[in-house]
Amino acid sequence: MTTRADDAPFAFVASDPCQALLDRADHLRADADALAALWAGASVLLFDSDGRVVADSAGQPIVHRGAQIGDGPGTAVFLGVDTDARGWFALDAAQVAGVPDGRVDLRSAAATWRAPELSAFVTGRALQQWRQRHRYCGACGDAVLLLRGGWQGTCRSCALEHYPRTDPAVIVAVVDGRRLLMGRQRSWPERRYSVIAGFVEPGETLEQAVRREVHEETGVHVRHCRYLASQPWPFPGALMLGFIAEAEPGDAVAGDELDEARWFERDEIEAALAAEQAGRAEDGPFLMPARISIAHWLVRQWLAGAATR
Amino acid sequence: MTTRADDAPFAFVASDPCQALLDRADHLRADADALAALWAGASVLLFDSDGRVVADSAGQPIVHRGAQIGDGPGTAVFLGVDTDARGWFALDAAQVAGVPDGRVDLRSAAATWRAPELSAFVTGRALQQWRQRHRYCGACGDAVLLLRGGWQGTCRSCALEHYPRTDPAVIVAVVDGRRLLMGRQRSWPERRYSVIAGFVEPGETLEQAVRREVHEETGVHVRHCRYLASQPWPFPGALMLGFIAEAEPGDAVAGDELDEARWFERDEIEAALAAEQAGRAEDGPFLMPARISIAHWLVRQWLAGAATR
Repeated sequence: MTTRADDAPFAFVASDPCQALLDRADHLRADADALAALWAGASVLLFDSDGRVVADSAGQPIVHRGAQIGDGPGTAVFLGVDTDARGWFALDAAQVAGVPDGRVDLRSAAATWRAPELSAFVTGRALQQWRQRHRYCGACGDAVLLLRGGWQGTCRSCALEHYPRTDPAVIVAVVDGRRLLMGRQRSWPERRYSVIAGFVEPGETLEQAVRREVHEETGVHVRHCRYLASQPWPFPGALMLGFIAEAEPGDAVAGDELDEARWFERDEIEAALAAEQAGRAEDGPFLMPARISIAHWLVRQWLAGAATR
Repeated sequence: MTTRADDAPFAFVASDPCQALLDRADHLRADADALAALWAGASVLLFDSDGRVVADSAGQPIVHRGAQIGDGPGTAVFLGVDTDARGWFALDAAQVAGVPDGRVDLRSAAATWRAPELSAFVTGRALQQWRQRHRYCGACGDAVLLLRGGWQGTCRSCALEHYPRTDPAVIVAVVDGRRLLMGRQRSWPERRYSVIAGFVEPGETLEQAVRREVHEETGVHVRHCRYLASQPWPFPGALMLGFIAEAEPGDAVAGDELDEARWFERDEIEAALAAEQAGRAEDGPFLMPARISIAHWLVRQWLAGAATR
């Protein structure tokens, strides 16, 4: 594994956001012969039940070869094919004997993995979480059987088809002239703030969700907003849809979901970023969201002058 | 019910896409007293098991008052509060005695209902579909109990929480200079074409989904794309995310999911639209997607000169 080349949040490449990091090769999912042929040389990530990947003693993720594990992909989930024509699979670590004790979570892996490997981690983790929560059919309660390399479930009783779930959520840099609105959840580390986010509900547009979530969580009204970029975030299965929005003038008041919501001046944010970049984040005026997150990227987009429409 | 005032696809208002059509009033969902107080004067849509609403003999949807139905909301789903401070609920028609025989589906209702009422229809339909498919817990198979006005489920055995599902899908006006790419599904009426669409998969961004879906379905490569607007589309629970994209030069070849994919000239599309507007759609060179859909809106955006970046 080599170090990541750029500062973009994992799983999207700012210079070409359409660029896939792993070819999902949908046409191979139902082709058992093709998957079997890919298996021996394939890269396999082993997941524990908490969604962490098996790692070496230095905490670096271990990428197994299919041939090391067994004769065929069996119940492994097919993630896609990389630019070297190598297959990628995800497998439950419990199904493999003699697995080392080390584990690494996605946030830690994101610090050193390259974007294509992280994309495999993100996709494998999302499918594992979906599988853990969809072993039984919601319509009739009987068992769901997996098909198509792990990408489809079918109820063995009522035959209802089940597909992996992705929950769209808006995440919004709300700005008011030269200030940025951020909030704090109770469960976060002390002094950590981030931009406002929340799940989109059935029956609403993204833009309606932006206005509703910002108002519910901070009391601030959004005048208009603009979509900038998205990021899959498999905790458990969200797709973060990043917006910048202009607020109507008004104070911020934390709603039920936040401990605090307030406006930040530009120089306060620049000081926090400078401290983080100097490796002394704790000396800054507050703690920024994680560098791998689209939240961090949105803050930097605002500092760089992104327009709200 | 009055006729809709504008041409925007239902559930989004082009002049202010952030504007909610119904206040979802999240803070009231867990407040049984508040919901009971709203009930007597509330507007209630009755849904049959196919997601159609009870209608009068002329095919117009009937909006019941809560007091006509019973003493309290019971198992009704709370949809929100309109600008007249009236509550909106959705209820299974099977739970109400003496319901008329007429039914109307969402596509028919969209022709004459106003946007706020349509928003209630869309949201009620999406929640009903989610409920039908999540009666049992996917993690353990036991029954799921509904809470918070129908917006949350909790497994009575393992206590796993369940939330309504919304499936993000990209829908893309792919353009190549003066031509637009459209395709035909086998199940559609003869001569009907529409822009390319498909579900976003776990682990990918919207932009990666745009490029993947367009290539899978038509063989065409997308160079870059731009998000324009979104539309909830509860068949069964999609959120359509509308893009315009620029293609690399190349022929269109239908993939597995389409019967045909081809490029359309601007004057061919203008002729189809003109025939539709004259009430003689069948005389045009082909049939456009439904007027209520974001697909139709995207085609008109392209004709009006929307940029691909």
